[in-house]
Amino acid sequence: MNLENYLKGYREIFEKEMKDTLFKDDSENLYEAARYIPFAGGKRLRPILAMLSCESTGGFIKDVMSFGLALEIIHCFSLVHDDIMDKSTLRRNIPTVHVKYSEPIAILAGDLLFIRAFDVLGSYRTDPMLYSQLNRIFIQAVTDVCEGQYLDMMYEKQSNVTKNEYMKMIEKKTAALFSVAAEGGSIVSGSSPHVQQAMNTYGRSLGLAFQIRDDALDMISDTETLGKDIGNDIRNGKKTLIAAHALEHAQGTNKELLAKLFGNPHATDEDIKTVRQVFQDVGSIAYAEKKAQEYSIIAKNSLSILSDSSAKDLLSDVASYAVTRVK
Amino acid sequence: MNLENYLKGYREIFEKEMKDTLFKDDSENLYEAARYIPFAGGKRLRPILAMLSCESTGGFIKDVMSFGLALEIIHCFSLVHDDIMDKSTLRRNIPTVHVKYSEPIAILAGDLLFIRAFDVLGSYRTDPMLYSQLNRIFIQAVTDVCEGQYLDMMYEKQSNVTKNEYMKMIEKKTAALFSVAAEGGSIVSGSSPHVQQAMNTYGRSLGLAFQIRDDALDMISDTETLGKDIGNDIRNGKKTLIAAHALEHAQGTNKELLAKLFGNPHATDEDIKTVRQVFQDVGSIAYAEKKAQEYSIIAKNSLSILSDSSAKDLLSDVASYAVTRVK
Repeated sequence: MNLENYLKGYREIFEKEMKDTLFKDDSENLYEAARYIPFAGGKRLRPILAMLSCESTGGFIKDVMSFGLALEIIHCFSLVHDDIMDKSTLRRNIPTVHVKYSEPIAILAGDLLFIRAFDVLGSYRTDPMLYSQLNRIFIQAVTDVCEGQYLDMMYEKQSNVTKNEYMKMIEKKTAALFSVAAEGGSIVSGSSPHVQQAMNTYGRSLGLAFQIRDDALDMISDTETLGKDIGNDIRNGKKTLIAAHALEHAQGTNKELLAKLFGNPHATDEDIKTVRQVFQDVGSIAYAEKKAQEYSIIAKNSLSILSDSSAKDLLSDVASYAVTRVK
Repeated sequence: MNLENYLKGYREIFEKEMKDTLFKDDSENLYEAARYIPFAGGKRLRPILAMLSCESTGGFIKDVMSFGLALEIIHCFSLVHDDIMDKSTLRRNIPTVHVKYSEPIAILAGDLLFIRAFDVLGSYRTDPMLYSQLNRIFIQAVTDVCEGQYLDMMYEKQSNVTKNEYMKMIEKKTAALFSVAAEGGSIVSGSSPHVQQAMNTYGRSLGLAFQIRDDALDMISDTETLGKDIGNDIRNGKKTLIAAHALEHAQGTNKELLAKLFGNPHATDEDIKTVRQVFQDVGSIAYAEKKAQEYSIIAKNSLSILSDSSAKDLLSDVASYAVTRVK
């Protein structure tokens, strides 16, 4: 896919910025743990989104780099803490921070990433109004991320979750950072409130499409491709859109199989396959893919307010990629 | 002590502000866990310090309330996460958050407190320069708090820690928030850089005195008075100034007792008493009390730059209280 080549260019610009800035002069062991996930790779989608948004609305990429870095750092913070809470052992194909170091160190490493994100935003202090505005939307997004993770955990304990509850959860847990990435890029470029709103909608819709696809991949892909634990979602009884649909529509044997195996921590690899097949048979995976497509289209449509540019085309391509990607 | 009556007045003003502001409209269960420690009482020393500093440098208390609230919230965040890391079960005479709720909820509740502190600082946005300046010193202090907690944990695993290493640790873990409280109060009042620096020194010295006394109380007080686990510091081999001094100076039987009992997770209550006696005999507790006194005097001396006022007198009294308090 040609898109990947284009994104690679943006990713390399971002990773250079991150390497030059993040924990550069911190030699303590603690910072080794804090550096571990940010420098373990990743798609860098949030900063790339901020860069493309800034560019497509007439701004300069260099002006949005610190904001993108703050987004990626907060994303990594949430991964580090979520992995402790979810007892995940694998992330980006390597052991999670709490497995490699220890749980106390992982909590602290997450906290350090958290505060560093705010430190990085400090580079906008030369423009106090911009600094204030970026802080405001950033703080709201981080609050959403924490609340979303809470809902995600609570839903695992509930026997059932509606599709609406699921959407509310991923809106906070995932879409909030995507929407603030796109909105922030347009704020840095000095766009009108109309354009900022359109970019917020783009990011939000993209985030929803992305997360629905993410949950679907956990049901159709394998550990090696994804670089994280597969089957855990089923063993933990994670309430994805697919699960919500299946729990609502499964009948007969399928219903019994879900009752027995979904959310069963002792489910074998064979059981995982069985549950995946049930999701397939009930039409839940097809349903989720259709929903993801719908949000991808909303994302693309919200770009109509922008003048033509290669950055705009890339944003549109990213919206397609979000629902077709295999990892 | 008359001081307590004066401080009570400030504490009540602060607690009303906190009650009116903190998580007021958040009904989710998660916020119950986040509210748990802030509303479980506490000395409120950091916000009171900010209030007294603001008042004694010519400002209005109401202008510093949000800054004080942000300080108290961050203090609570650090308590919640530290208690998980240190496996403490009691705090302010009630079970710690991770014991009462769960570890995942406690991690998240801490994260929510963290982000809320920044949200609360947002009330200074109407004065973008002030907002920017308060954010800058606040972010540095929070970074110090995290690094200090890391050093504290690392020192527990080291067989020995020098007195200098201990001072470096408490400078970050405790004194950073005290100094930013006092400095912030003087920034809000519009003081000159000279006065801001003096208040920073006051807060830092007070924080050092306060923490040295805190560690000493763990060695001479009881669980009921302090409202937290006693003996854990000895079982964990926590490197306080007292321990650093004792490990350096103990001879003969005392040295053997420390080698056997200090840092021994299976130490009995009788063993704890024995170690306390060793600390006494070696002169380590007297040494720490002398050091705390010295920092208390530095704190008081740094107030000489201020005009006379009742708030200034209270700051001086707080510096005395820090090293004479029994809980």
